[in-house]
Amino acid sequence: MTLTPTREDKFSFGLWTVGWTGTDPFGTSTRRALDPWEYADKLAELGAWGITFHDNDVWDFDATDEERSDRVAKLKSAADAAGLVIEMVTTNTFSHPVFKDGGFTSNDRSVRRFGLRKVLRNVDLAAELGASTFVMWGGREGAEYDSSKDLFAAHERYREGLDTVAGYIKSQGYDLRIGLEPKPNEPRGDIFLPTIGHALAMISVLEHGDIVGLNPEVGHEQMANLNYTHGLAQALQCGKLFHIDLNGQKGLKYDQDLVFGHGDLLSAFFTVDLLVNGFAASPDAPRYEGPIHFDYKPSRTEGMEGIWDSAKANMETFLMLKKKAQAFRADPEVQALMREASIFELAEPTLGSDEDVATFLAAVEPFDAAAKGEREYHYVQLHQLALRHLIG
Amino acid sequence: MTLTPTREDKFSFGLWTVGWTGTDPFGTSTRRALDPWEYADKLAELGAWGITFHDNDVWDFDATDEERSDRVAKLKSAADAAGLVIEMVTTNTFSHPVFKDGGFTSNDRSVRRFGLRKVLRNVDLAAELGASTFVMWGGREGAEYDSSKDLFAAHERYREGLDTVAGYIKSQGYDLRIGLEPKPNEPRGDIFLPTIGHALAMISVLEHGDIVGLNPEVGHEQMANLNYTHGLAQALQCGKLFHIDLNGQKGLKYDQDLVFGHGDLLSAFFTVDLLVNGFAASPDAPRYEGPIHFDYKPSRTEGMEGIWDSAKANMETFLMLKKKAQAFRADPEVQALMREASIFELAEPTLGSDEDVATFLAAVEPFDAAAKGEREYHYVQLHQLALRHLIG
Amino acid sequence: MTLTPTREDKFSFGLWTVGWTGTDPFGTSTRRALDPWEYADKLAELGAWGITFHDNDVWDFDATDEERSDRVAKLKSAADAAGLVIEMVTTNTFSHPVFKDGGFTSNDRSVRRFGLRKVLRNVDLAAELGASTFVMWGGREGAEYDSSKDLFAAHERYREGLDTVAGYIKSQGYDLRIGLEPKPNEPRGDIFLPTIGHALAMISVLEHGDIVGLNPEVGHEQMANLNYTHGLAQALQCGKLFHIDLNGQKGLKYDQDLVFGHGDLLSAFFTVDLLVNGFAASPDAPRYEGPIHFDYKPSRTEGMEGIWDSAKANMETFLMLKKKAQAFRADPEVQALMREASIFELAEPTLGSDEDVATFLAAVEPFDAAAKGEREYHYVQLHQLALRHLIG
Amino acid sequence: MTLTPTREDKFSFGLWTVGWTGTDPFGTSTRRALDPWEYADKLAELGAWGITFHDNDVWDFDATDEERSDRVAKLKSAADAAGLVIEMVTTNTFSHPVFKDGGFTSNDRSVRRFGLRKVLRNVDLAAELGASTFVMWGGREGAEYDSSKDLFAAHERYREGLDTVAGYIKSQGYDLRIGLEPKPNEPRGDIFLPTIGHALAMISVLEHGDIVGLNPEVGHEQMANLNYTHGLAQALQCGKLFHIDLNGQKGLKYDQDLVFGHGDLLSAFFTVDLLVNGFAASPDAPRYEGPIHFDYKPSRTEGMEGIWDSAKANMETFLMLKKKAQAFRADPEVQALMREASIFELAEPTLGSDEDVATFLAAVEPFDAAAKGEREYHYVQLHQLALRHLIG
Repeated sequence: MTLTPTREDKFSFGLWTVGWTGTDPFGTSTRRALDPWEYADKLAELGAWGITFHDNDVWDFDATDEERSDRVAKLKSAADAAGLVIEMVTTNTFSHPVFKDGGFTSNDRSVRRFGLRKVLRNVDLAAELGASTFVMWGGREGAEYDSSKDLFAAHERYREGLDTVAGYIKSQGYDLRIGLEPKPNEPRGDIFLPTIGHALAMISVLEHGDIVGLNPEVGHEQMANLNYTHGLAQALQCGKLFHIDLNGQKGLKYDQDLVFGHGDLLSAFFTVDLLVNGFAASPDAPRYEGPIHFDYKPSRTEGMEGIWDSAKANMETFLMLKKKAQAFRADPEVQALMREASIFELAEPTLGSDEDVATFLAAVEPFDAAAKGEREYHYVQLHQLALRHLIG
Repeated sequence: MTLTPTREDKFSFGLWTVGWTGTDPFGTSTRRALDPWEYADKLAELGAWGITFHDNDVWDFDATDEERSDRVAKLKSAADAAGLVIEMVTTNTFSHPVFKDGGFTSNDRSVRRFGLRKVLRNVDLAAELGASTFVMWGGREGAEYDSSKDLFAAHERYREGLDTVAGYIKSQGYDLRIGLEPKPNEPRGDIFLPTIGHALAMISVLEHGDIVGLNPEVGHEQMANLNYTHGLAQALQCGKLFHIDLNGQKGLKYDQDLVFGHGDLLSAFFTVDLLVNGFAASPDAPRYEGPIHFDYKPSRTEGMEGIWDSAKANMETFLMLKKKAQAFRADPEVQALMREASIFELAEPTLGSDEDVATFLAAVEPFDAAAKGEREYHYVQLHQLALRHLIG
Repeated sequence: MTLTPTREDKFSFGLWTVGWTGTDPFGTSTRRALDPWEYADKLAELGAWGITFHDNDVWDFDATDEERSDRVAKLKSAADAAGLVIEMVTTNTFSHPVFKDGGFTSNDRSVRRFGLRKVLRNVDLAAELGASTFVMWGGREGAEYDSSKDLFAAHERYREGLDTVAGYIKSQGYDLRIGLEPKPNEPRGDIFLPTIGHALAMISVLEHGDIVGLNPEVGHEQMANLNYTHGLAQALQCGKLFHIDLNGQKGLKYDQDLVFGHGDLLSAFFTVDLLVNGFAASPDAPRYEGPIHFDYKPSRTEGMEGIWDSAKANMETFLMLKKKAQAFRADPEVQALMREASIFELAEPTLGSDEDVATFLAAVEPFDAAAKGEREYHYVQLHQLALRHLIG
Repeated sequence: MTLTPTREDKFSFGLWTVGWTGTDPFGTSTRRALDPWEYADKLAELGAWGITFHDNDVWDFDATDEERSDRVAKLKSAADAAGLVIEMVTTNTFSHPVFKDGGFTSNDRSVRRFGLRKVLRNVDLAAELGASTFVMWGGREGAEYDSSKDLFAAHERYREGLDTVAGYIKSQGYDLRIGLEPKPNEPRGDIFLPTIGHALAMISVLEHGDIVGLNPEVGHEQMANLNYTHGLAQALQCGKLFHIDLNGQKGLKYDQDLVFGHGDLLSAFFTVDLLVNGFAASPDAPRYEGPIHFDYKPSRTEGMEGIWDSAKANMETFLMLKKKAQAFRADPEVQALMREASIFELAEPTLGSDEDVATFLAAVEPFDAAAKGEREYHYVQLHQLALRHLIG
């Protein structure tokens, strides 16, 4: 095993990640912008397998149709030449002032209609470019003030918008699935569909929910004080883990988009463990098979070299964690301790396969609650074994 | 309108709320415990309409069947005599050491079987006492270490447990619905079903999900940095707001269970506004019709008098906020500004009633993005009107 | 008492507050910029008493000396004509890329020298314009990575920079005091001097700390999960509350800069109570006598009208809270309950005025710990009285 | 270098850490308690060098003088026999109901006098047992309600209490220093002296502050969303890092007291780097020379074996991180990149050693702001090297 990225690793980057020039709420750009195809070339050189983009990462909001086609064509040929897959496309419905109150949930209906058209047009492009995932992050769908929205109507408009897009994809016969990206806040005070859970709940009430799943981002879940790996597990249980966004975040603050692993490292280790090794006791459980997509930002302190250092760091960290996670799982001492911790027992249904509730309730089953209250699980020791593998 | 609670207000309290004696991680009880029926009598006297309890709020974990029946009977007759409804019953699967790794998701199967029996037995009691809601808070369903669980199996066991209980309720013909109570952490490092969204997602994969809904608590959502009122709206969209737990929390820290309104007051105002007035632009949207249930704790600094002061404060605050919320909505200036903010327009579907996507995409619709980007929504001013109603 | 602002209210605004055009990490400006003197005129019209600014709110980073003088002169005459005091001046050492790693604590010494010169030059201007406070917010003094700084050297350079500026002020005989503005993060991952406490600690090791105090901002303390009013109290204990920044924040997320009171309303009430009424039991304690300065942002959803709506809302909210706070303190029922809560007793030293430790330890003093453990403090009821005054 | 703890490592544990039986707000004990001397014996066996305790870890609150002496004597001889140093003693002013509103800042003066006597008596014992540090954690010094305290008086009483204790230590000629332990909340809604900064600020206004310093705990700073290592640096700058409490915490939630390193691992790495290697560019800066003290809890899921597994895990993790930190610093590639990042340049004063402000301002110094804004710092790459050392 090597730590040099290969195409088999399916590493993918958003053009907006390496393309971020360092503008933040308190400062202007520290780096110049390159053309989209320049980013693509360089990412391929570093070992990436795929790229992704928002429409306005490639052409301006006000671009003419001609400019749009021209720039798309240039990007496409650069990607082809470099052997890069354009695996995901997404739409910017958050930067332009017109979307200041949302794209699908703006109180202004004409804005919603405009937003929907922008998204649908981008669906066509995604299909045309052969992308398999169409991500939708509703960054401006939300509010700062509880007085400013009919919250039922807002959720209904969100549902309508998602179903319209999903229905359109089906009607056109596109081989494309939607990945919703939850986020709790920033740039809105409270964003709708703030977590993996809320997005899964929305999908459950869609008419065309069968082609709608998730694109969960590490930092976004952590901004809601939640465990990312737990969220992946529930998304997999629902059959909805369509795409992922890996990066780093240091707790409850602004969206940092650090390099993957540069935030909560232990959490990153167990995320990789899940992605690479699957669930410990559930060999038949759904697995994530999609790209390893990074949605990070080269820190504003970095110059042009720092862009590529940081892009590489994401892939290297993933590969280092992969190696450690494989060794961890393969270690007989770990396996033994997992058995002692009854981890495999959790995969066994609580009721017997032929046991109905009446039988279960009628059964006389000796049980010593006091003794069970004192039993060892050895969770700390098992965690320490993980730490030994990681840093020992 | 009076600020004295009446039965029509449907105020309800958990026996464990007024019954909390002040034990916390760093200190022992500061108050003595009363008998359950004493709490009931006093709550009725203060104007409560209903009470709720965990099994072990009334009888000990180790109680004999006889002790159990005896204490239930005493509570039931006290409630009847006081005219109190026992509207909700819930099960303690978190205090005894046997549940240290969970009731439904413990790695130890024998513990899961024991937990399930404890819950099912309590379902019978809930039905017998005429409760309409059976709350399930899985406080110990979770983990501190990502290494300690097969997270897929954990979610599957949770699903199995919930479906077993819901199926049992149906099979017995009980007129009872389950209310899941999400919480992100405490007492576990990460609790499964951490937010309203995650619980809704779980319900969507249940076989018997039709009788399973939510019992969201103010403080629990705020511990995940989320907006409680937004969560209620999504639960209502899913038709799943079965019960509520009102209290107060001051941001991201331990579970405070303050008096309702003693945490984030503006958020409490808009929660009451939603409960009392419904959605502003969606008259036909689902409404919450259940009890106004308080799940709070009299602070540990309080003596026995403070128990009743604080119980009263919950109801008084709700009634004060209700009065303000009604005046806010009835104010013509508010209504006018809501129109200017296009709030009613959000209830209008984005596509016309007879408009399909093809027509929509083909339509030529003039749209001035720059002008729309500059339009006024007057959200700050509308929020300030709310503040004027609240404190002016 | 009127809710119309008067000069006696000493309301003051940063030019950058009303001047924020809506650029955020995910979007471009939604409003056009006015000239600084246009903001000043309008603020005076709304009832403001003072204005404040960063150097680059008035002239560009690259402005020539002539442009600088010209724009300063225009602002000064507009302020004079409008009767506005320029009460505070501050320096932008965060927007330009040169400061990407800090102004006083950049690893690059030439940047530190440049930053220090920029600040010192602005000190001269502040003095010339008659400002009484010179605020220093080190927004870029910090790090994302623990590896990127010698943290001792960083704190030493910060100390050196502050002492250089304070020493210069003294050497020039300026009637100017420095107000440090703490913030925990954003735009850096971790900012040095993250809270009121850390800034007070820094001041304690300065050579010229006598003219250095604090300018604490509501939202910044709340981003560290702290109680703003508690922080003001400790700053007053240290004699260091030189200036304040009022605004609103909804918990642990990006820096929201909402209108004062639009965040945690109860906390805002007690802040105003402290500012207006002083400490309840300590009539001789230091009081804050400075301007009521707002450091907020008109939300990005607002148009040009929303700028002025929101500016007014800050002042109105302060005046509404002031009225409520005065009534709260004057209420005999409140005073009686404060006595029952032993609030006045806290002002009495624990040892007697002529009691030394030996006497104290030798004294035989009956004490019933059990009874004291059960005593009533009535804190919940007292808080409920505050709520009644606020929203009753 | 071995990963087996030796006396030279100066590892120390609180008796209350291994002695925690698992009681939490939602559950009862899962483990039985041992006698204090049993914990001591076992800790010595595992390689600990020292132990620490609260008075009521060893004898009951209501113990007679005889019981107290008897139990102290037993503990002392066990420690002596095992070769353990009793390096720190602290006082429990938080568990008994009498302290429900604080020990030094209770509104009730008789409680304050009682609390002060309890602390002073414990000072005598600490001196008698040869402890070098006397920790004061004011866990109940705080409030849930802003209405319940005169916050100036509260801080003044805190100051009085601390000065009384410090003055007493001096007057008795004890070789003992006080270590204040900050914490932002839990068990109170807001605790006074919430962070390292606030405690340093309090020390700066003490009469006897020369013998008062800090005992900062990893998790406590992280509960205020702060960087622990940054806090250590500022405490060292003030000459006040007297003692430390190492443990683990997973962000903003209840106080978890996980094993050191089981929370934010990268942060733990840089804490150890600072403790072991000192500041990178400041060889003459103060160093921490005290014990490596762990203040953690064996998780409630653990049985009796888990107590010792977890105690060992703290020491092992420290030693693993120490080894990695030493290799990181010794790596020539790291040193080279640190130079490129100008890290050593930060130790150079901004003004020259013989440069006064006037000279500095008069100097003509070419400076290209645009070029400096584009310079590389290579912070991401340097951080990645740290990661490579840690997990590569």
